[in-house]
Amino acid sequence: MNIVIYIYNGMTMLDAIGPYEVLRNLPNANIRLVAKKKGEITADSGVVHLHAKHQIDEVHQADLLLIPGSMIAFVREMKDRKVLEWIKSIDATTQKTVTVCTGSILLAATGLLKDKKATSHWKPIHLLSEFGAIPTRERIVEQGKFITAAGVSAGIDMALYLLREIEGEAAAKVAQLAIEYDPNPIYASGNYTTAAPEIIGAAERLMAAEAKKELSLWDMIKNLRTLKKLGR
Amino acid sequence: MNIVIYIYNGMTMLDAIGPYEVLRNLPNANIRLVAKKKGEITADSGVVHLHAKHQIDEVHQADLLLIPGSMIAFVREMKDRKVLEWIKSIDATTQKTVTVCTGSILLAATGLLKDKKATSHWKPIHLLSEFGAIPTRERIVEQGKFITAAGVSAGIDMALYLLREIEGEAAAKVAQLAIEYDPNPIYASGNYTTAAPEIIGAAERLMAAEAKKELSLWDMIKNLRTLKKLGR
Repeated sequence: MNIVIYIYNGMTMLDAIGPYEVLRNLPNANIRLVAKKKGEITADSGVVHLHAKHQIDEVHQADLLLIPGSMIAFVREMKDRKVLEWIKSIDATTQKTVTVCTGSILLAATGLLKDKKATSHWKPIHLLSEFGAIPTRERIVEQGKFITAAGVSAGIDMALYLLREIEGEAAAKVAQLAIEYDPNPIYASGNYTTAAPEIIGAAERLMAAEAKKELSLWDMIKNLRTLKKLGR
Repeated sequence: MNIVIYIYNGMTMLDAIGPYEVLRNLPNANIRLVAKKKGEITADSGVVHLHAKHQIDEVHQADLLLIPGSMIAFVREMKDRKVLEWIKSIDATTQKTVTVCTGSILLAATGLLKDKKATSHWKPIHLLSEFGAIPTRERIVEQGKFITAAGVSAGIDMALYLLREIEGEAAAKVAQLAIEYDPNPIYASGNYTTAAPEIIGAAERLMAAEAKKELSLWDMIKNLRTLKKLGR
């Protein structure tokens, strides 16, 4: 199975690495991390760097396309017609097209999620509606061949779900045991709908402070009409 | 806070990226991924490549040292006296020294876990006893400044636990919400003590097939006396 994970500057590393670590247990998985251009890709933290060995103009097919999210860089990707066209062209060849976190907003910007339910990170999930998708606050949302997952760590759950669909229950269970995925967080503070208001506020401030490091993109989120004109 | 994550060829990517994605929410975190030599580091899958910007002979201090595990490459690292000495010298400067998966076996090979309880991936956990540590089948084991986590995904739980210790409850909860860590695996197959025997068998075969791709290291695991002579 040809698995393509799109990687880009400013991406959130765990969005890609969580699902990758599950999916690589798929028999005969051929996983490629594909960037706009071969070479270095820097995560949103600025401290983790991937080395991309594949670039989009050389990759024309995937059975599975995975689009990770980012703190704010998804806005830059949305402005890039070449990226949107490539995503659409690969999607035309996939069995499944899946996203983690704000990857769903990038996918929605191509138009492919129009009138479909989709999830995303709890904070920017409303942006999905700007592109005709229906924001749906669930951990995993499946609509035909499209599966979207909530923020960051949700990609691990999504990948196990996907592995079950592709290869069956035993394969999903084996992968889960291989990565010893028996989660046991010390707190129950990972869900927006049940987190304490002061924790939500503090998380919003933390993320906004980081997102505002790229002020031009931050301003663009606030003016999505411009973004939509650029993006489609 | 200076956080150093040791990265090496053959490492399991999620072992490092899971905790990193939690810890980067720590205020004033200065995270460095440090390799033997600057340049490219390839994960155990062979398809994910990091670009290391720091190398061990230039890094002399850390408040927190994190050692990720690997399918089998930890055995190669154990043979490298320079790596073992560097780990010991950094540990002498840390507040916390932590591991994920087989990272604990590499740490044990330095002698630092002697007579201490430690956990590891469920499959090779018995190897800890070869280096005087006490194999303890728990998700997180804390012994003074040392915290060891079970396989792969356990690093996320461990990092939240660590964040609570370093920065307090609110900081851990905020990080958990930022990465939307509200895990909801479709199966309960991530724990060795409760997984079905046929799933354990299949996972063992899957991992052995991959580990045996590096036959020289595989043989070395089977002859740990040689390894111990080399390692210390």
